Amino acid sequence: MGSNKNILIGQGGGPTNVINQSLVGIIKQEQLFKSKIFGAINGVNGIINERFHSLSKLSSNDLNQIANTPGASLGSTRDKPDKKYCLEILNILKKKKISKFYYIGGNDSSDSLKIISEYAKKIQYGLQCIHIPKTIDNDLVKNDHTPGFGSAAKYVAQLFSGINFDVKSLPGVYLGIVMGRHAGFLTASTSLLRKDESDGPHLIFIPEHPFVINNFLTQVKKIYNKFGRCVVAISEGIQDKNKKLVSQKIIKKSEYDAHGNIQLSGTGSLGDFLSEKIKINLKLPRVRADTLGYPQRCFIGSASEIDQKEAKQIGVFAAKYANKNNNSFSAGILERKIFNRNYNAQFIINSLADVAGKTKIMKSIFYDKKNNKVSKEFLNYALPLIGKDLIKTKSII
Amino acid sequence: MGSNKNILIGQGGGPTNVINQSLVGIIKQEQLFKSKIFGAINGVNGIINERFHSLSKLSSNDLNQIANTPGASLGSTRDKPDKKYCLEILNILKKKKISKFYYIGGNDSSDSLKIISEYAKKIQYGLQCIHIPKTIDNDLVKNDHTPGFGSAAKYVAQLFSGINFDVKSLPGVYLGIVMGRHAGFLTASTSLLRKDESDGPHLIFIPEHPFVINNFLTQVKKIYNKFGRCVVAISEGIQDKNKKLVSQKIIKKSEYDAHGNIQLSGTGSLGDFLSEKIKINLKLPRVRADTLGYPQRCFIGSASEIDQKEAKQIGVFAAKYANKNNNSFSAGILERKIFNRNYNAQFIINSLADVAGKTKIMKSIFYDKKNNKVSKEFLNYALPLIGKDLIKTKSII
Repeated sequence: MGSNKNILIGQGGGPTNVINQSLVGIIKQEQLFKSKIFGAINGVNGIINERFHSLSKLSSNDLNQIANTPGASLGSTRDKPDKKYCLEILNILKKKKISKFYYIGGNDSSDSLKIISEYAKKIQYGLQCIHIPKTIDNDLVKNDHTPGFGSAAKYVAQLFSGINFDVKSLPGVYLGIVMGRHAGFLTASTSLLRKDESDGPHLIFIPEHPFVINNFLTQVKKIYNKFGRCVVAISEGIQDKNKKLVSQKIIKKSEYDAHGNIQLSGTGSLGDFLSEKIKINLKLPRVRADTLGYPQRCFIGSASEIDQKEAKQIGVFAAKYANKNNNSFSAGILERKIFNRNYNAQFIINSLADVAGKTKIMKSIFYDKKNNKVSKEFLNYALPLIGKDLIKTKSII
Repeated sequence: MGSNKNILIGQGGGPTNVINQSLVGIIKQEQLFKSKIFGAINGVNGIINERFHSLSKLSSNDLNQIANTPGASLGSTRDKPDKKYCLEILNILKKKKISKFYYIGGNDSSDSLKIISEYAKKIQYGLQCIHIPKTIDNDLVKNDHTPGFGSAAKYVAQLFSGINFDVKSLPGVYLGIVMGRHAGFLTASTSLLRKDESDGPHLIFIPEHPFVINNFLTQVKKIYNKFGRCVVAISEGIQDKNKKLVSQKIIKKSEYDAHGNIQLSGTGSLGDFLSEKIKINLKLPRVRADTLGYPQRCFIGSASEIDQKEAKQIGVFAAKYANKNNNSFSAGILERKIFNRNYNAQFIINSLADVAGKTKIMKSIFYDKKNNKVSKEFLNYALPLIGKDLIKTKSII
């Protein structure tokens, strides 16, 4: 089966630390099938501009280095194709005689794939559209978790563990603003390396639960009075009771991308706003705010070995399945019913319609609203995903 | 020699990723000398408040974990003792029969030690004051480099290498604000993993060279036109032609510490100010600014193995020397004359007066003013310090 077919791979949306593991998984498997493998430069944008790159002859050594490199190795895009754009894509895929189109991306990318696959069916062109999930936000439905999340979670967990020791030695208030537009998974993951109640982060604020400034200040004060310091992780996507982004209320000049999303990262304004509130209202010393920014999705050297493995395997899994079947689909990871720390991912096939354009948020059992902390269930859920390659720490005071 | 003496160790100033390696080096060596080892909690502040902790019986296993932990394990302080404060310290050291006082810190800490050692001499109390250098800024004179710098340099190098790949896949302008109040070493180190001219960071702005906003904008535009993207590393300490901090001119409400230093980290204002300038004047798309903040000195998992080794060895070296001699001193690392990548640190003894309160800045041969880049000499100087435990990367586009 599968010999000498033309296949195309693209990458869309914000890249992750392991998005190229999936790319390499697909390439290696399709090389075994002797397919003619093309890469679309900058995702769907590269298709309509006919910018393709041959990937058939990449060596195993090169592929291994590419797999370990963050950023989308083929280039990514923020373009969100409308119907006309999708038709153009389909025409070019037809012209290039592409029989399988793999698109590695988030829920916006799966939405584009769904539209393209529907058009292909309409004109009876035998195209398989295959979605490979990636996101650091972990907000894809029908998936236990998404490749990319584990490495970002490991980065923020290691970062907050280091901050915990730093703030322990020079006490004060530390606010860290964490990526995550609608879902609090990454912000919650800052807690993964805490050892006891006195360890930071002491407070977690996620988009799923309304952010009330007075509650925030009360909680910071309570923790500060108890431990003489307070470390807080706050999602960039926190919303007020009316579901309005707190960021949106304070940013003077906002920037929106083609998906109509406001720019949340790449500005320090939310952190600065909240630290100013603490300085003015609580008059606490040494209040610092860091906006963790883009390193969360691309820092080199703290990828989770489990995340790397799964991201590659899901690419291999999708290529094997696509080779034996003719349908379009979204590769996925089976959702767990019970959360324990001995966990192994199991790959599944979802329909594109099931995942396209939908957003998963944190389960309510993952978050303790009253104390603004994560639950034991969340720790059990997320700890296996950051791997075991962690440094043992200890402090004297 | 040395048996049953009372010795005291303290840690001062901003902690680093390896400040506890030095602490553990001293403790392990003094345990061999069978000294009674005390730790001052929160540095000099813990001395005048008589907050001591016995360190004599810490196990080797605990010490190894403490060594790998960022933050000052004994707690640190921003107190800058005046004469009265130093006299109080001396009285308490005398009361506790301390014969050696090790203080791990930057140039402010060595200054305090110098004053205390002078008072001790005056009253003929046989006290050895021993300074062990640490700083991520690398701004201590009479030292080739300072323990703590190599790990911070590795963190920012890995961070910018990741950012380079991220911005390559979704082109735009990225500004990263890097720690370093007076010296540009850390900002320069963001270049250490660049492979060619098209790799970011494309531009480096350091405190040693006047920052002119029009030059900055011209350079960003030039790079953007050439590569379709621009990654910039900017020191938090950049100054205008009149040596006034750019930060100071834009921060509405400033915060100063006890040393009269303005708060530069823990706020996103400089990055936001510069990205706004680019948006307004150059009208470029996707302009993002991250202020790298405190993780630079405490991120867990990216310590340089060379830095860890040296930080521990300098503690051992100082303890051995102090045991054979009676003078006060600052342990140091011999300055190189020639910069090549096969480098091994050589420990030396400096006088406290030689290092106290002085600031080292970047040599002019380390920086290419015209192109706002680092020189080959700088790469040769700094590359050996981040170690060899680095990930090989490769991109398709």
